[in-house]
Amino acid sequence: MIPPPYLLYLGHCDDEFGIKTSRGLATFRPEDCVGEWRHDDCPFTLGLPRMNAAEGRAAGAQTLVLGIANAGGQMGGAMVEDALAAIAAGMNVASGLHQRLREEPRLVRAAQEMGVTLFDVRDPPANLPVGNGIRRAGNRLLTVGTDCSVGKMYTTLALWQGLRQRGIPADFRATGQTGILIAGAGVPLDAVVADFISGAIEMLAPAREDDGWDLIEGQGSLFHPSFAGVSTGLLHGAQPKALVLCHDPTRPHMRGLPHYQLPSLASCLEANLRVARLTSPDVQAVGVALNTAKLDEAEARRLCTATGESLGLPCTDPYRFGADPIVDWMLQCFAPSPPATTASA
Amino acid sequence: MIPPPYLLYLGHCDDEFGIKTSRGLATFRPEDCVGEWRHDDCPFTLGLPRMNAAEGRAAGAQTLVLGIANAGGQMGGAMVEDALAAIAAGMNVASGLHQRLREEPRLVRAAQEMGVTLFDVRDPPANLPVGNGIRRAGNRLLTVGTDCSVGKMYTTLALWQGLRQRGIPADFRATGQTGILIAGAGVPLDAVVADFISGAIEMLAPAREDDGWDLIEGQGSLFHPSFAGVSTGLLHGAQPKALVLCHDPTRPHMRGLPHYQLPSLASCLEANLRVARLTSPDVQAVGVALNTAKLDEAEARRLCTATGESLGLPCTDPYRFGADPIVDWMLQCFAPSPPATTASA
Repeated sequence: MIPPPYLLYLGHCDDEFGIKTSRGLATFRPEDCVGEWRHDDCPFTLGLPRMNAAEGRAAGAQTLVLGIANAGGQMGGAMVEDALAAIAAGMNVASGLHQRLREEPRLVRAAQEMGVTLFDVRDPPANLPVGNGIRRAGNRLLTVGTDCSVGKMYTTLALWQGLRQRGIPADFRATGQTGILIAGAGVPLDAVVADFISGAIEMLAPAREDDGWDLIEGQGSLFHPSFAGVSTGLLHGAQPKALVLCHDPTRPHMRGLPHYQLPSLASCLEANLRVARLTSPDVQAVGVALNTAKLDEAEARRLCTATGESLGLPCTDPYRFGADPIVDWMLQCFAPSPPATTASA
Repeated sequence: MIPPPYLLYLGHCDDEFGIKTSRGLATFRPEDCVGEWRHDDCPFTLGLPRMNAAEGRAAGAQTLVLGIANAGGQMGGAMVEDALAAIAAGMNVASGLHQRLREEPRLVRAAQEMGVTLFDVRDPPANLPVGNGIRRAGNRLLTVGTDCSVGKMYTTLALWQGLRQRGIPADFRATGQTGILIAGAGVPLDAVVADFISGAIEMLAPAREDDGWDLIEGQGSLFHPSFAGVSTGLLHGAQPKALVLCHDPTRPHMRGLPHYQLPSLASCLEANLRVARLTSPDVQAVGVALNTAKLDEAEARRLCTATGESLGLPCTDPYRFGADPIVDWMLQCFAPSPPATTASA
């Protein structure tokens, strides 16, 4: 586990997508975030107090989270200098960047001297098992998508929040770098060796005997030619009782592949259910999450209604309109049977 | 490339399945095998002259192939001693074992001193690309299976031989350790990181402009909960024009998973075609290969006939009855169109 509370790093980042990990932490773990560290050329704020390394440490931060992404996933000199300052102030450093903290000798040396820890969340756990598909107890929900980057992590977190707000035990099971930094644990599925994809998810979301839920962050898409293998192994390892389909209605083509169209929602849902049935024969779809950021509100609401009606499922934009319609429906679908009575009204 | 000719190592192996790599080389590259090295307690022969390291080297062998598998994939002291003897005699050493040759310091030191090379075929190539799904030229056939270890490699090699015997350019594209040792090149797909499965196959079987064929060795099964992700990425990366379905009719359950039944041949074929269509919309099935080793000949022939009739495809046991029915049919399916004529007979 990565020790909270956190100081969230924005640095010099001037790309809105680039700060999504820091933003995710501020949104979903606000109680664990003491401040944001941004330089004058960063035009964004997470609405947290602005502070540098020393100020963050004084405010109680245990870990500086390098919650930004940049082209190539490299750290760059300025980021290394700031990480060194955080270490000097007595903080751990966590990163989801492609370039590992432990590959930067100055950081390694400084962390040793200060007795703090470097967390590279892209390193998969050692000794992952091969999946076995043995049916295991527990409620598990997996988000699936028509494409990559359509809101699967966000939707999963919104469902997790919705369950917890209702007092239902729930765990968010992260499978990507951002999710892992938010959860403080997880498996970076894109870095796992092919033979262990489903086994990694069996380990990540083991049998649970309570009536709570494991909410598993999906990856890729069965219709993305680059990553469908990952999505397939994830479906099989998850053994989901419930699927939620995520979609960006304004996406012009599969991400990064102008020569590939998006699938229809109905065919995508059908394909995911079919694959999931191998390890979870009774799996069912419980909702659709649309990312309507680029639509005006009236159009967004109209599209959610129309999509829900055409698929016979609750449909919402969980970021814009909340996840309640899906949370309500999944709880109704999987409600414990009422005790048998001798007569019905 | 691993320099031929080879001395095939059987060592002390007393497990018939354990010698399958050496047997595969003797079967499919007989012209490159000068002899077999077996100790007195090994009850098997490949029908090659028996020789030790020094005799093998004298007969011209360039490489000792440790073409055996054992539980755990470790080398053991006797095998290391024999490999050292081969190095001392001036041979390279190649291995598909889980334990890497380069992790055994005595072998590394000896190879350096003698100026020979150690080949660990389980190491995937560096800098694999992410798949892009862009349609590429060329005839590609992929073997798929109802389960793991049902004869996909053998079938692929038999088809490759059949095409070459007809003078048609053809390349065997290996995706597993044994196949790689036979081909002298390939990608060990089970060791590739998840995000690169389809990209690895796009690299392994690039566009080809002649009328020849790439015959790609399948892995796993869409119906095996441990490995379906690998099979999915392989289907997408391969962009196959043709699929051949491989099956062991005597397999009681999915390999290693007593709680999973085998799929029907028809549903397995349908699922593979459906997944393959994402990157290869016109893909078609061209045959079924049965592994009938445990059936008597009359029963085997009857089953091939019945299976072929029920699926409307040529069906054979390529090891027992040859691959001709499938080779003939695939060539007919993909024959270049005859020149247009002004009148037909």
